[in-house]
Amino acid sequence: MTTINAYAVKEQGGKLEPFQYELGPLAGDQVDIKVTSCGICHSDLSMMENDWGMTAYPFVPGHEIVGTIEAVGGQVKNLVVGQTVGLGWFSGSCMHCRTCMSGNHNLCPQTEATIVGRHGGFADRVRCKEEWALPLPDGVDSAAAGPLFCGGITVFSPIVEFDVKPTDRVAVIGIGGLGHLALQFLNKWGCEVTAFSSNPDKTEQLKALGAHKVVNSRDPEQLAALAGTFDFVMNTTNVNLEWGAYIEALAPKGRLHTVGAVPDPIEVPAFSLIGKQRSVSGSPLGSPATLAKMLDFCARHDIKAMVEHFPMSQANEAMDHLKAGKARYRIVLNNEA
Amino acid sequence: MTTINAYAVKEQGGKLEPFQYELGPLAGDQVDIKVTSCGICHSDLSMMENDWGMTAYPFVPGHEIVGTIEAVGGQVKNLVVGQTVGLGWFSGSCMHCRTCMSGNHNLCPQTEATIVGRHGGFADRVRCKEEWALPLPDGVDSAAAGPLFCGGITVFSPIVEFDVKPTDRVAVIGIGGLGHLALQFLNKWGCEVTAFSSNPDKTEQLKALGAHKVVNSRDPEQLAALAGTFDFVMNTTNVNLEWGAYIEALAPKGRLHTVGAVPDPIEVPAFSLIGKQRSVSGSPLGSPATLAKMLDFCARHDIKAMVEHFPMSQANEAMDHLKAGKARYRIVLNNEA
Repeated sequence: MTTINAYAVKEQGGKLEPFQYELGPLAGDQVDIKVTSCGICHSDLSMMENDWGMTAYPFVPGHEIVGTIEAVGGQVKNLVVGQTVGLGWFSGSCMHCRTCMSGNHNLCPQTEATIVGRHGGFADRVRCKEEWALPLPDGVDSAAAGPLFCGGITVFSPIVEFDVKPTDRVAVIGIGGLGHLALQFLNKWGCEVTAFSSNPDKTEQLKALGAHKVVNSRDPEQLAALAGTFDFVMNTTNVNLEWGAYIEALAPKGRLHTVGAVPDPIEVPAFSLIGKQRSVSGSPLGSPATLAKMLDFCARHDIKAMVEHFPMSQANEAMDHLKAGKARYRIVLNNEA
Repeated sequence: MTTINAYAVKEQGGKLEPFQYELGPLAGDQVDIKVTSCGICHSDLSMMENDWGMTAYPFVPGHEIVGTIEAVGGQVKNLVVGQTVGLGWFSGSCMHCRTCMSGNHNLCPQTEATIVGRHGGFADRVRCKEEWALPLPDGVDSAAAGPLFCGGITVFSPIVEFDVKPTDRVAVIGIGGLGHLALQFLNKWGCEVTAFSSNPDKTEQLKALGAHKVVNSRDPEQLAALAGTFDFVMNTTNVNLEWGAYIEALAPKGRLHTVGAVPDPIEVPAFSLIGKQRSVSGSPLGSPATLAKMLDFCARHDIKAMVEHFPMSQANEAMDHLKAGKARYRIVLNNEA
């Protein structure tokens, strides 16, 4: 038996409190990770508050984990004890279905999510299937790497999957934890990058992150003036938007892609799709192969999350900071060495 | 001056009546076509009745034209007098914008539509820019070829543009003028083809057209049982559907594509897109290069529209037949030789 020292919410609306639980013997295809740090994602908050109706209490958040391999199961061939790895939203997939066998493990119908029906990374240790623990390559700063494993891959994977080209004109809606990484990726991808932000005060910062242009997303006229412009627009927000106007902002064959789980159905006028052969799509995180590709890309281009650090023991204060909308742009909790 | 003998509606709600008009000198990049036959598309009816608010009266319908080249402008190099050609919804594009220069002439912002702001193919002659008059290859039956130039290309182009694969599981919603061609194309493309039809009496006929399976589109349970099945679903209807259920019927990475201009916005649940990396899209007709590709494919696989013939002089009776929903599957009007 392995004892895990974690922070859990015991009931809906509760605070994070120290919480211990036991894990049984390590299976052949599993690894245990000693957690160094763990980023905080908005979905940790949604799960803590049972917004999606699938939270089991006590609930341990945390799915942007960096740590070192502490133990490996008997079948594990790709990881060794002591190696520094990251772990994100997924901690398992079936590995044998047609989807997994095609390399799309993140679309497997039997994925195990790190904080759904099991305990996450606000802890000293966490367990996962070997395929989801990705070694950090040289050049990736481990102190800021956690957010890449959820926020980062969420915005990187669609760039790969939907074949965004360096010659494309692209835009990112919402510049927070996800958006600030999307700007960096798309800039280094070679694209012409526009940031849609509700906070024009951020303009200089958004340009430093990689935006060539910044548009005030609260000004319908600025958006209307961009009709027919973009090959790819990525929405990172969780709010209902004027979808019709964003679709009209797409060039012929353009795509509006959402990674934000907006509450109401997206209303898509058929004429807007048909006339210019446009698409609307969504995607969840990314596969292990795409994670590895992202990490290499980050190392080569010095892409990293901008993070604020809190000690793990101040997880409640960190959560309050997130709730207040003050995170710039991602919070990382650190365990004591 | 060239005198054209046509059939026109003089006012909203009117009947088709003989109508003459004059055309000036042929421009260097234009051709005149002597019309042999002209298919009837539902959009002819919509335009006659000014459903889209863009009809100018007198209005001459007709944009599924087959005929012979009667005159060519001085710059025309690809067509000769006497050649049998087809002409569809588009009769011109600017030829110099980036979209045209990329081969996407059907997405050009300056396309000229055969029945918008000018007169169509319910006539003895029609004029167009050279690039939109496509020679019929050997093996394409000219008597049934008109419907390929609107109904056919509308369902063929997305198969090409969105890279539908012979190993895909695909479905077609609505088996009428467009759908009966989509079934043939997709079957010969090598796909596993499902037809969604509101009329189960047609089952044997739909199988003869290429459907491997027929599903009653009025039975929500049959649709629900197909969750996660299809790589590509094409909607050919003009009615609001239970979009959420069709999106759920898509496999991971699947696409719901509409060529039908459904009246209300398509309601797309973000979670359904995100979880399985799905897309929703639309497209208009196809480019001249794709038209040529379609004609070759039809010739090689003996694909043709099932048509009912009326003399051009009985255009009103033919329109009544269409309005009554009796067309099986496309009506073609023939000029006397």
